[in-house]
Amino acid sequence: MVCVPMSYMFEFHNPVKIIFGRASSEKIPSLIGLLKGEHSSVAIFTGKTATRKLVERMNLRENLEQEGFIPHLFSNIEPNPSSDTINKAASWLKDISADIIVSVGGGSVIDAAKAASLVATNGGSAWDYVKKPEDEGPIKQPSREIIPIIAVPTTSGTGSEVTPYSVVTNTELELKRPISTPYIYPKYAIVDPDLCNMPRKLTGMTGLDALGHAIESFFSLRATPLSELFAMKAIALILRWLPEAVSSPTPESRSNMALASNLAGLAISQTGTIVTHALSYYLTIKFGIHHGYAVGLLTPSVLKYLHEASTKKYEDLTHRLGENPLDSVISLLEEIGLRRSLHQFGVEEEDLVMAASKASRSIWNIESTPGNPAKNQLLKILRDAYCNL
Amino acid sequence: MVCVPMSYMFEFHNPVKIIFGRASSEKIPSLIGLLKGEHSSVAIFTGKTATRKLVERMNLRENLEQEGFIPHLFSNIEPNPSSDTINKAASWLKDISADIIVSVGGGSVIDAAKAASLVATNGGSAWDYVKKPEDEGPIKQPSREIIPIIAVPTTSGTGSEVTPYSVVTNTELELKRPISTPYIYPKYAIVDPDLCNMPRKLTGMTGLDALGHAIESFFSLRATPLSELFAMKAIALILRWLPEAVSSPTPESRSNMALASNLAGLAISQTGTIVTHALSYYLTIKFGIHHGYAVGLLTPSVLKYLHEASTKKYEDLTHRLGENPLDSVISLLEEIGLRRSLHQFGVEEEDLVMAASKASRSIWNIESTPGNPAKNQLLKILRDAYCNL
Repeated sequence: MVCVPMSYMFEFHNPVKIIFGRASSEKIPSLIGLLKGEHSSVAIFTGKTATRKLVERMNLRENLEQEGFIPHLFSNIEPNPSSDTINKAASWLKDISADIIVSVGGGSVIDAAKAASLVATNGGSAWDYVKKPEDEGPIKQPSREIIPIIAVPTTSGTGSEVTPYSVVTNTELELKRPISTPYIYPKYAIVDPDLCNMPRKLTGMTGLDALGHAIESFFSLRATPLSELFAMKAIALILRWLPEAVSSPTPESRSNMALASNLAGLAISQTGTIVTHALSYYLTIKFGIHHGYAVGLLTPSVLKYLHEASTKKYEDLTHRLGENPLDSVISLLEEIGLRRSLHQFGVEEEDLVMAASKASRSIWNIESTPGNPAKNQLLKILRDAYCNL
Repeated sequence: MVCVPMSYMFEFHNPVKIIFGRASSEKIPSLIGLLKGEHSSVAIFTGKTATRKLVERMNLRENLEQEGFIPHLFSNIEPNPSSDTINKAASWLKDISADIIVSVGGGSVIDAAKAASLVATNGGSAWDYVKKPEDEGPIKQPSREIIPIIAVPTTSGTGSEVTPYSVVTNTELELKRPISTPYIYPKYAIVDPDLCNMPRKLTGMTGLDALGHAIESFFSLRATPLSELFAMKAIALILRWLPEAVSSPTPESRSNMALASNLAGLAISQTGTIVTHALSYYLTIKFGIHHGYAVGLLTPSVLKYLHEASTKKYEDLTHRLGENPLDSVISLLEEIGLRRSLHQFGVEEEDLVMAASKASRSIWNIESTPGNPAKNQLLKILRDAYCNL
C-alpha cells in the first residue's frame, strides 16, 4: 500500500504513444502518415547484422515505398554507440533531409537514433549533451524539436522506446554517459513481441537489463507512486517469465517480457537508474561485457547493499514478492545460466578501483541511490560481485 | 499476475504533465511562463461559490498579474454543465482572446473548460462533439489545437485533469454524453491535495465517483495491462483511505485520495467508463442525485452483475483485495454514511425503465461492459439498486 507522506511531491509525464502487440510493426507505414507535416524522406536505423536482416524480412523499405515515402538505411551502429558514430549518423540525417526516423533495434540502435536526431537539429556533438558533474562545465541544452522518431525495439531489455535518455560512449575517456532531455522522447513506441525473437543468451542478458531498470527504479530516491507501480509489475513479470523466455520461448513468454521491459522503461523514464548502471559502464567499455549482463552481474551485490541502505523498501519488496529479492535474483541468474563473478570475465582486483572511481563521477546515479554510496562503498559492491558475494 | 494473451494488443498514450503535491498550485503562474507562445490573457474557470472563493484565497489573480498576465474570471459554471453554458463560456474565451485557461474546480468546472476551449477553437456547439449512436448522425471532429488548459482539481473524484473527456448535459433531451478526443487533454494537471478540502459529504460522494472509475476501468473490456495497474491501485487506496478522508480528514488521507482519484483518471483515460456511468446519467439529470453519489449507489448492483458476467476478473479482484469486492463496497458505503437505495431518492419503479432505456443508448459504455448487457439486464441492475440488492 502506497502511503503518500504528507509532504509528498511528484511529477509524471511521458508523451510517447505506445502500440503494443504482435504484428503491431505492420502499422509503421500508416503511422508515418498520421504524423503531422510532410514526411517523404524516412531514415531507417538498424544494427549491423541481425536487425538489418530483420528489416529486410519485414519488407519495411518496400512497404514505405508503396506508401510514397523514400526510405534510406543507416545500419552502421555498433553496440554501445560512440559519440563519433552518432555524429556521423546526424550528418547523414541532414544529407538525406530526413523528415522522420524509424529505429529498429536494441537499445543501442534506438539510443543512437535519439541522439543523432538531437545533434542533427540542435548542432554540436553528441558528447556535448551528456550529463556530467558540474566541475566539468555546462551541458549543451537543446532548444529545437528533433526529427520525430518511431522506436521499434527488437530486444526486451532497454525500454529506450519510452525514455528521454540516450547513453553515449566516449571510447577515449572510457566513459558511458546519458543524454537526458524530454526532447528525445520517441513519438511512437511500437512494441511487437514477435520482433523480439533473440538467441537464448541475448534474451537472458537483455532481460537482466530490464530487471536492473525495474529494481533500480523501485529503490531510487526519485521513485514516485506511479514509477513504483511500473517497476513492481516489471520485477514480478521478469522473475516469472524470463526463465521460460530463455529456455523455451513462446509468444506468451516473449509478450510478457516485452511488456516487462516496456514497464521498466516507463519506470526509469521517471526516476532514471541508480548505482548498478553507474558501476556497469566501465565493465562494458573495458572488458566488453554486454551491457545487460554487466547490470545483471552487479544486481545481487547491489541488492545486498540496498538491504542495508534501504531496509524498509527492501522489506516492502520482500513482502510483495513473497521471497527475499536477493535470493530471487540469484535463482534467476542460475536458472538462465548467467550466474558469474566478475573474476570470470578477466576483471582483476585492481580494475575495481578504477571502476568505482569512474562510477563515482556518475553523480546523478549516485545521488538517487539510497545512502548516496561513497567510493569505498562502490568498491565494496564491486568486490562482492568480483567474488560472487 | 498479468499474463498477456498471445494475441494481446493495446495502446497507451497520455500526454498530460502531472504535478502532484501539497502547495503544487503555487507553481501555476510560473508554469504559464513555461508554455510555448505568448500568454497574456489568462481565463480562469471556477464554480459559482466554493471554488470561486478558493481562487480568491489562493490570490491567483494577484499572482498572475504580478507575473505580467491579464487574468479574467468565468465563474458561471453549474454542476453537470449544459451545452448552453459551455457555448457561452466559449464565446467569452473568444471575447477575451484567451491564450491559456486555468480551470480550478471539480469535474464540472474542468470538463466545462475543456469543452469550451474546444468550441472556441473549432466552432459549432458543445453538443455537436459528443458521442452518439451512429443512427443519430455524424460527430463533429476537431482539427485545431485548443487553448491550452492547466487543470486544478478541487475534489478527489473525477480525474478529469488527466482524461480526454468532457461530459456535457443536454437538459432538453435529458441526456449526459461525453466528448472524447485527445485534443482536450489538459497540458498540466496540478493536483494539490490541500485544495481538495471538501465538506464531509462531498468528500464521500466524489470519492465514490473515483471508486466507480477504478472499478469500471478494471472490468472494462478495453482494459490494458497499464490501465489495470492504475485501476487496481486506485481501488485499494480508496477502500483504505476514503473512510478516514470523510470522518477525520488529514493531509495524509487527502493526499492518498487525491492520488487515488488521479490514478483512476489515468485508468479511464485509456478505457473509458462502463455501465455504471451510463446508468447514472439519468438519475442525476432527473432526480438531481450528485454524479458521484449516483455512481456509488449503483456500484453494488453493478458488481453483482459483473460477478456473473466477468467471473474470472471478479475472482482476480477478490484475490487481490483479499475480500469480496461487493462486500468491501457495501461496507465502505455504510462506513461513510452513504448506503441508500434509489427508492430513498424519490425514484419510482416506473422511472427505472426510462433510465435503462437512456443508458442503453450510451453504446460506448455498454460495448465495453462485460456481457454487453441488454436493456432487461440494465433494468435488473437498476432494480437491485432500487431496493438495495
